[in-house]
Amino acid sequence: MDKQQLIDCHERIKPFIHNTPVLTSRLINEIAGADLYFKCENFQRMGAFKMRGAANAIMQLTDEQKQNGVVTHSSGNFAQALSLSAQSLGVKAYIVMPNSAPKVKKEAVKGYGGILVECESTLEARERESDRIVKEHGATFIHPSNDDHVILGQGTACKELLELRPSLDYVVTPVGGGGLIAGTALSAYYFGNNCKTIGGEPFEVDDAYRSLQSGKIETNTTTNTIADGLKTQLGDRNFPIIQKFVDEIVRVTEDEIISAMRFIWERLKIVCEPSSAVALAAVLKKKDDLANKKVGIIISGGNVDLSHLPF
Amino acid sequence: MDKQQLIDCHERIKPFIHNTPVLTSRLINEIAGADLYFKCENFQRMGAFKMRGAANAIMQLTDEQKQNGVVTHSSGNFAQALSLSAQSLGVKAYIVMPNSAPKVKKEAVKGYGGILVECESTLEARERESDRIVKEHGATFIHPSNDDHVILGQGTACKELLELRPSLDYVVTPVGGGGLIAGTALSAYYFGNNCKTIGGEPFEVDDAYRSLQSGKIETNTTTNTIADGLKTQLGDRNFPIIQKFVDEIVRVTEDEIISAMRFIWERLKIVCEPSSAVALAAVLKKKDDLANKKVGIIISGGNVDLSHLPF
Repeated sequence: MDKQQLIDCHERIKPFIHNTPVLTSRLINEIAGADLYFKCENFQRMGAFKMRGAANAIMQLTDEQKQNGVVTHSSGNFAQALSLSAQSLGVKAYIVMPNSAPKVKKEAVKGYGGILVECESTLEARERESDRIVKEHGATFIHPSNDDHVILGQGTACKELLELRPSLDYVVTPVGGGGLIAGTALSAYYFGNNCKTIGGEPFEVDDAYRSLQSGKIETNTTTNTIADGLKTQLGDRNFPIIQKFVDEIVRVTEDEIISAMRFIWERLKIVCEPSSAVALAAVLKKKDDLANKKVGIIISGGNVDLSHLPF
Repeated sequence: MDKQQLIDCHERIKPFIHNTPVLTSRLINEIAGADLYFKCENFQRMGAFKMRGAANAIMQLTDEQKQNGVVTHSSGNFAQALSLSAQSLGVKAYIVMPNSAPKVKKEAVKGYGGILVECESTLEARERESDRIVKEHGATFIHPSNDDHVILGQGTACKELLELRPSLDYVVTPVGGGGLIAGTALSAYYFGNNCKTIGGEPFEVDDAYRSLQSGKIETNTTTNTIADGLKTQLGDRNFPIIQKFVDEIVRVTEDEIISAMRFIWERLKIVCEPSSAVALAAVLKKKDDLANKKVGIIISGGNVDLSHLPF
């Protein structure tokens, strides 16, 4: 994927996304010993960066494909993102979700106009159900992270950040399925001035860290993390980009995630997901290496259940 | 207080404050049936609008007064605001606080360089202690809300909001000691285009509502509200301004406050105080009157104890 594709993608999706604000805090900078710039995708439409990739993927379809709709399986932010993007573009979105998913997530999808299709809570059942919808309705399957158009879309958050702050030394994102960090690394490479990309990942789901070590896509054996957006694994589209363009993946503990999350809420006064806090936790862990550097942090989303906070 | 005083005040304090962002949400607008513009003073330095008035009050002192320091009694945001403003301006700030105040508030004052002076938990003890500091150190007493320079400073948030959104029909603030709403009403009058000021006040501490009814400053008999910043009463400097320039004070229940607070956290993805939510609660209560209007809302602050949330 080249620079022009990122530029075209950004122009394409601009009418459907917010150019989200970038926040800073003197106090956080003092404590971090670096200049941190928080790109607030929690303020994005539907509350997460996923809107960018979803919108781009749908806009790349032919008119015939658009008429038949799109389908994905997700119980997270991509489900809402695909629903809202599809609604904005007048396209049907089938969202396959395990019937065990929280009611609030099912309602959110329906609220954004998505067609909820419930199934058993196994990966096999979800894939079978998606396949059925593809066959029956001619819908196009869109993967939440392992899709070139999705990766390009997610990269536009970093592009906007670098347009505002061209001299960043680093940009840091959480690592889940790999779409955000791959897109970010591409934008950092093409639009930054020697800007390096770092990923933050919970020890509990350190598949990306181990994949970079082993040179092949690893899976998770444990998924016992509060960062529920990061339990997914890398794919064959984003892994080569991550291998080539990501500088390092920093692993953090659950306590470090919760403490970084509290820090963001208390000091930046914003509501972010545990997954977003993983990036700040990684920055604080690498404090010595990042001293006096300019560091961008992608706050990936803000969809949390206020009745179940870790503090 | 005239227009030029507000303009001068704003120019004076600009180096010490943030021009805070204004957030909007399509979803909130749909539900409210109006266009709402949230002026986010929770993103202000030290986390509340109080920074504006405190900075202005200190900057108006003579050099000799500055040398002898300032004093106030407050266990809320004004304590932190006076401490940080004083520190920024190289002035000593004595903060009289009841020894029963939460440790986190005492630490915050000390963190901003304030000199903490503890006393018994009665208004009499606090006033006696302030008087002692005035006499012993020659410090200048600065009232958190009933002070012309403080009122002017607080009015600059609305001035900034109107510079960005000149055609607001209404601006809505919470009502506590009266400094914010008085300053806001002045700015709305001088800088708005027929922009009216509305106050939101908890039923539990409806002294301002009753004061406007009776024509004299009333006190509260109950203070059983979650909006802990609004328990104070009006004063002789701000009450006449409120009488002249405020259109209406709308009272809201505790449930309405908590529900509006949750709404702001979930939809705007920002952390605000219960006191701030009172303004949105008032807007939702007056939904029929405000239909299709452009309404500014001052989110007054974001200093909350995350360990004690009402949801």
